[in-house]
Amino acid sequence: MGKGELTRQAILDRAAQIASVDGLRGLTIGRLADELSLSKSGLFAHVGSKEGLEVMVVELAGERFVEAVVKPALQAPRGEPRLRAIFERWLLWPKLSQLPGGCFFVAAAAELDDRPGPARDRLVALQRDWLDHIANTARAAIRENHFRKEIDSEGLAHDLYGIMLACHHASRLLEDPKAVSRARGAFERLVEWARRPGAPRFSSGPGVA
Amino acid sequence: MGKGELTRQAILDRAAQIASVDGLRGLTIGRLADELSLSKSGLFAHVGSKEGLEVMVVELAGERFVEAVVKPALQAPRGEPRLRAIFERWLLWPKLSQLPGGCFFVAAAAELDDRPGPARDRLVALQRDWLDHIANTARAAIRENHFRKEIDSEGLAHDLYGIMLACHHASRLLEDPKAVSRARGAFERLVEWARRPGAPRFSSGPGVA
Repeated sequence: MGKGELTRQAILDRAAQIASVDGLRGLTIGRLADELSLSKSGLFAHVGSKEGLEVMVVELAGERFVEAVVKPALQAPRGEPRLRAIFERWLLWPKLSQLPGGCFFVAAAAELDDRPGPARDRLVALQRDWLDHIANTARAAIRENHFRKEIDSEGLAHDLYGIMLACHHASRLLEDPKAVSRARGAFERLVEWARRPGAPRFSSGPGVA
Repeated sequence: MGKGELTRQAILDRAAQIASVDGLRGLTIGRLADELSLSKSGLFAHVGSKEGLEVMVVELAGERFVEAVVKPALQAPRGEPRLRAIFERWLLWPKLSQLPGGCFFVAAAAELDDRPGPARDRLVALQRDWLDHIANTARAAIRENHFRKEIDSEGLAHDLYGIMLACHHASRLLEDPKAVSRARGAFERLVEWARRPGAPRFSSGPGVA
């Protein structure tokens, strides 16, 4: 990496930290320049515009999510074990994201749902990719004879996302110590509902996660 | 209501509209004064401080929620029918709230989870009341022999909140036309899981909602 690229990385990293706590709205070029001891014009040379910066921050969070959650879970065997690995990696995501403010995407979703523009478009694309990835994993679990043929894989992805959102809400806002164990319980009920009678039983061990 | 009280109501109503779209962070005394053609000092006389204003906006949303969702559902018979009514009223809440930006609480939760202070404290108290209300409704369903004795009512409340959060996310951010039907499907699975074998079957008709 050249010096320009290193500076760009440092800018994006700091921008993501600010956005994670104070939202994309709290992320201003002036504040970012101040915190990095850069001139505003120098910063603009790297990020183009406030709008461009927001898109880059969404991209950065997306890349970290793929590295921290999606890729490691691909090491688990196809089907139910991989779905378990996705869920367990997701539980680790707030720590693995290297961002102080909980799940970046939950915060960004609430902020951007009323604000059309390139950052919202990019976030929607990433969230659809994520739901598609879960649905595809559920489809593979049907092909592997772990799950019943009749289940709606997209519906399962939607429901699992709800389990994740409730866990995030309970742990971050309500500081509920049972948040993770409740999410695990709901996940087991979802898998139990989807499971083909007579299918092998898997558990979410550290080897899988 | 005297003139002062009417002014106060108009201020809070406008403040809630702004916060609903641009977040509590987007709600500034200057902007609110501009939009209402009031002086900043006149506004301060009514709301005390920016912090006080935020708490009042959270309170206002809470009062509207009780009127729009909690109270009407109390007209449904105790137990599972009342839980169904709560869920159906909740589905109407974004419209009934008279706020343009979707569910006020989902947006405020994402914004305030990292920001300690009186507005966060008030929001947490309201969200706990809401989850307690759902859990108490589930407990009554156990007493009415609609639901099994073994179910964890607080866990059920947590799971139902997840269904609501996923529905909000899918409809507001992803603009998924299936959001509500998916939420209804997940609700039916949750009730099915909780139901005592042999318990009467209820459905969520317009008479109940």
